[in-house]
Amino acid sequence: MPPDVVQGIGDDAAVVKIDGKKRLLLTIDMLVENVHFTTKMPAKAIGWKALACNISDIAAMGGIPKFAVVSIGVPSKIHVTWVKDLYRGIEAAGRKFGVAIVGGDTVQSEKIVINVALTGEADAKDVVLRSGAKPGDVIFVTGKLGNSLKSGRHLKPNPRVAEAQYLVKHFKIHSMIDVSDGLAADLRHILEKSNVGAVLDAEAIPLHPDAKLDNALYDGEDYELIFTVGAGPRACPHRGEHRGSPLQHGRMKFFPIGLIVNNPRGLFLRKPDGRIVKIKPKGYQHF
Amino acid sequence: MPPDVVQGIGDDAAVVKIDGKKRLLLTIDMLVENVHFTTKMPAKAIGWKALACNISDIAAMGGIPKFAVVSIGVPSKIHVTWVKDLYRGIEAAGRKFGVAIVGGDTVQSEKIVINVALTGEADAKDVVLRSGAKPGDVIFVTGKLGNSLKSGRHLKPNPRVAEAQYLVKHFKIHSMIDVSDGLAADLRHILEKSNVGAVLDAEAIPLHPDAKLDNALYDGEDYELIFTVGAGPRACPHRGEHRGSPLQHGRMKFFPIGLIVNNPRGLFLRKPDGRIVKIKPKGYQHF
Repeated sequence: MPPDVVQGIGDDAAVVKIDGKKRLLLTIDMLVENVHFTTKMPAKAIGWKALACNISDIAAMGGIPKFAVVSIGVPSKIHVTWVKDLYRGIEAAGRKFGVAIVGGDTVQSEKIVINVALTGEADAKDVVLRSGAKPGDVIFVTGKLGNSLKSGRHLKPNPRVAEAQYLVKHFKIHSMIDVSDGLAADLRHILEKSNVGAVLDAEAIPLHPDAKLDNALYDGEDYELIFTVGAGPRACPHRGEHRGSPLQHGRMKFFPIGLIVNNPRGLFLRKPDGRIVKIKPKGYQHF
Repeated sequence: MPPDVVQGIGDDAAVVKIDGKKRLLLTIDMLVENVHFTTKMPAKAIGWKALACNISDIAAMGGIPKFAVVSIGVPSKIHVTWVKDLYRGIEAAGRKFGVAIVGGDTVQSEKIVINVALTGEADAKDVVLRSGAKPGDVIFVTGKLGNSLKSGRHLKPNPRVAEAQYLVKHFKIHSMIDVSDGLAADLRHILEKSNVGAVLDAEAIPLHPDAKLDNALYDGEDYELIFTVGAGPRACPHRGEHRGSPLQHGRMKFFPIGLIVNNPRGLFLRKPDGRIVKIKPKGYQHF
């Protein structure tokens, strides 16, 4: 890996050194018709989501999203209104999160393809990787999970940029990732990169009213953040207590849902009856 | 346009201000199967081209290419060797031009889609836009043009990064663009953004042995650079003389092919018999 690459492939975004004191973050996402969306969904929502997913990746690194470039492949028969609405959605997300759309490319394609690349910036000390979780860390999530696809919530993600910034500026966050593939699959990325295990508390995982525990574990596309933080003084906003009501800061909520452990490796769930069971590795398969 | 955006949509790459003294450049390109390439072409060449086109965009801004993120959409039935060869081509171009591939996304897609986003950096004073051409400027091109598609040269573009760096460090380059759509279409972008006209000298345009003048004007995908430079002392490497043999610096060649004029507006060609004719606006239509 070249010396100016702090983190390459294998996290929510790449982290590279540039001129100046900040780190440059880079992420990219491709959405394909009939795989990630259909033209029956509102074009504006698809545009919003295309940019918001990338913003969520930057947030999960402890960064502030800055500049986006967008490529769109569209069939020549598509109505120009559809493309305009798509851009309107991208621009709306850009306005809300302070992202400038600075470039793009429109090409012909049989199926619609939307590709967004986004830069972010972060102070070097604020960058949070997946690989920093430590035994004893409390695991938190920034909001309710589950049933995002069926409920339609997946079309209007609200990336947790402000939450992540509050966290990195006030606490030593050891690891962080956003929930795109489901709590189980995404937390597992942290465990694998950090070489640790985790025990989640089934009763502590915050669920949307229309969701069950399995939805939270396996559905994905919630775009909440999972993060871990040490339990020492000033290290953990929850003072080491991993059960109980969520922490609040203004309108932000942080739900403690479990602990990082050294042994056993793997992802476990403490059921309401006290039994601890292994969580199966399933969830949304991109490919 | 936000204050940190120096140049948004409408040039080879976006130019933004970041922490530090340098400018960040951003460009993106999407290549779609059966529109920009077919699977009958060698995968490695397609990969090389996908990154090289973006590198050419950064070169045309006066920048040095740095970090790339790559998304690929592929059908599930595709052979893994094809995808590996594609990446091998991307990596080969990266190695040659000092670009680190720092992230990516692989998704399912009916047709193959390759999207490369590339960052570059440039000293603020070295950034060259399309909009700076001035009447009296000599128009140069960095190499031979024409017949890139039929000859297969379009699959092995050699972006002119070193040439552009030599130019911006030694001369005051007023405007620059790379030849992707053909000399006529790309020079016309400079004319429109700069609000000037141009007269090209038919006999001065350097052609590949297998190309005719029309190929140079309309074929595209040569990935040479067109640039304009003032004719004052130290301003123009050619001392105001727009006809004659190319300038050389080491292995680099710069061919003077015409002049920027105030009147008439539009793009004109001086034929070998001395007649000046208007060049028709045609060429490769992306969409």
